[in-house]
Amino acid sequence: MAPPTAAREAKLNLTKRYVFFVSDSTGLTAEGLGSALLAQFSKTATEKVFMPYTDTAEKARKALLRIRSAAQLGDARPLIIATILDPAIRQIICRSDGYVIDVFGSFLDGLAAELGEQASAQVGRSHINPADAKAQRRIDAVNFALANDDGIQTRHYDQADIILVGVSRSAKTPSCLYLAMQFGIFAANYPLTDEDLERGTLPAALRPFVDKLFALTIAPTRLAEIRHERRAGSQYASPKQCTWEVREAALIAQQANLPVLETTNLSVEEIATRILLHSKLERR
Amino acid sequence: MAPPTAAREAKLNLTKRYVFFVSDSTGLTAEGLGSALLAQFSKTATEKVFMPYTDTAEKARKALLRIRSAAQLGDARPLIIATILDPAIRQIICRSDGYVIDVFGSFLDGLAAELGEQASAQVGRSHINPADAKAQRRIDAVNFALANDDGIQTRHYDQADIILVGVSRSAKTPSCLYLAMQFGIFAANYPLTDEDLERGTLPAALRPFVDKLFALTIAPTRLAEIRHERRAGSQYASPKQCTWEVREAALIAQQANLPVLETTNLSVEEIATRILLHSKLERR
Repeated sequence: MAPPTAAREAKLNLTKRYVFFVSDSTGLTAEGLGSALLAQFSKTATEKVFMPYTDTAEKARKALLRIRSAAQLGDARPLIIATILDPAIRQIICRSDGYVIDVFGSFLDGLAAELGEQASAQVGRSHINPADAKAQRRIDAVNFALANDDGIQTRHYDQADIILVGVSRSAKTPSCLYLAMQFGIFAANYPLTDEDLERGTLPAALRPFVDKLFALTIAPTRLAEIRHERRAGSQYASPKQCTWEVREAALIAQQANLPVLETTNLSVEEIATRILLHSKLERR
Repeated sequence: MAPPTAAREAKLNLTKRYVFFVSDSTGLTAEGLGSALLAQFSKTATEKVFMPYTDTAEKARKALLRIRSAAQLGDARPLIIATILDPAIRQIICRSDGYVIDVFGSFLDGLAAELGEQASAQVGRSHINPADAKAQRRIDAVNFALANDDGIQTRHYDQADIILVGVSRSAKTPSCLYLAMQFGIFAANYPLTDEDLERGTLPAALRPFVDKLFALTIAPTRLAEIRHERRAGSQYASPKQCTWEVREAALIAQQANLPVLETTNLSVEEIATRILLHSKLERR
């Protein structure tokens, strides 16, 4: 068993810092940026606190109090990653004694000068309203992904932007959902069954849509691990079966001249963005 | 019909700028940040170009050529939003004649000084590897959301972190998936049926899990619009039916003392982050 966090940190001589992600909206941009930056520093242990929707002066003052009291607890002053558009709210957060990364503030003035216009400082203008066509498109895309998951039905493939093809548990479903949610892409997926693999050619249902097909592959050892979690000790999870399936699927993809993505060491975000890049699909 | 983009832009006297999102990884952070910044400027029309996985000097030089040739096409020099960790690759991009927002470069030196250690400049250290427990948890969470969507089954509710409750088409499914994918939360959802609403009390399947329930509500007019898209002119989509369902669902939520989120003007990201905030669930 792993030792408790505090003990482990002390052993590694890590400095503990509180990190506050303060945003006037969802905070996802602050989290993405802050995590990328902090991952570069291995001697710092972080305790993350998320403060989304800090969009009024009152909430900002509350956040400030919380940051100040955390300053007592860490080994060093807290870090604050702030994505706040309203300058008045931003200033309140900047009054903390922490180290503030003022994300928007760092770029808005320069950008305003470059573009020759003032920033409007309206909160959430960048965010999606479900009433928008774009947001509705994403919801429609998620519904499409759900309805056309796992080869449940193939009759809507004419409406698909892309159809992912691969063996069971090769990350097709989460990739389709991510493509739908993040990019508004209509993505269906088709799992190659043993029958398909034995036949050794592209299944008939897929043939009319060969231009939309995109194959996902995975290392057989990793596939066996994933399947083992699902059905331990089964034929389905055996290294032999996994090796055979992956090999036969690769032959079918090669024969049909499909683009192939190797997903073994990729996260779902990475798979989705690579598919988008390679297939030259437009974000919706 | 809307006029073609070029004509509309000319009419509004918009300046057209190319915006390049150049990243050594997925580019999602660059996109989130860049979109938030650009949404502040209404007189600029943008043509967005995404260049994820620019992770070698060679790819950076290719990107540079593309940026330089786009410089001829816009009304003003291009903007470049760069999230690149390797300083050598970053420098190549910075050689363009565009206006560069060097996101990581702007903060890494200051952060290194504050933390008293050098940045390791390893690409993608912030990203999730499917071999990680965390990434696997997200995939498991997506599978959980799919298996426990729309009240398909209720026998795994003991494993749920949260159970969203609401009428049909109140954004439960995309919210569950987003909670799963972005935060690793095990989210199930239960649609209140006419029978449930007529009975007027919390359905029996939900009662043991009252602490996990979270109600979503929506304006009846908006619900009718959404349902109309799905089944135009049906009883299901009628304003009368929608008004009745929303009202009865609100009474059940009130009686059971459930937290309620009004989703009418919220995006899926906003719904998910607000649920996380209000329910005090931990990110996994």
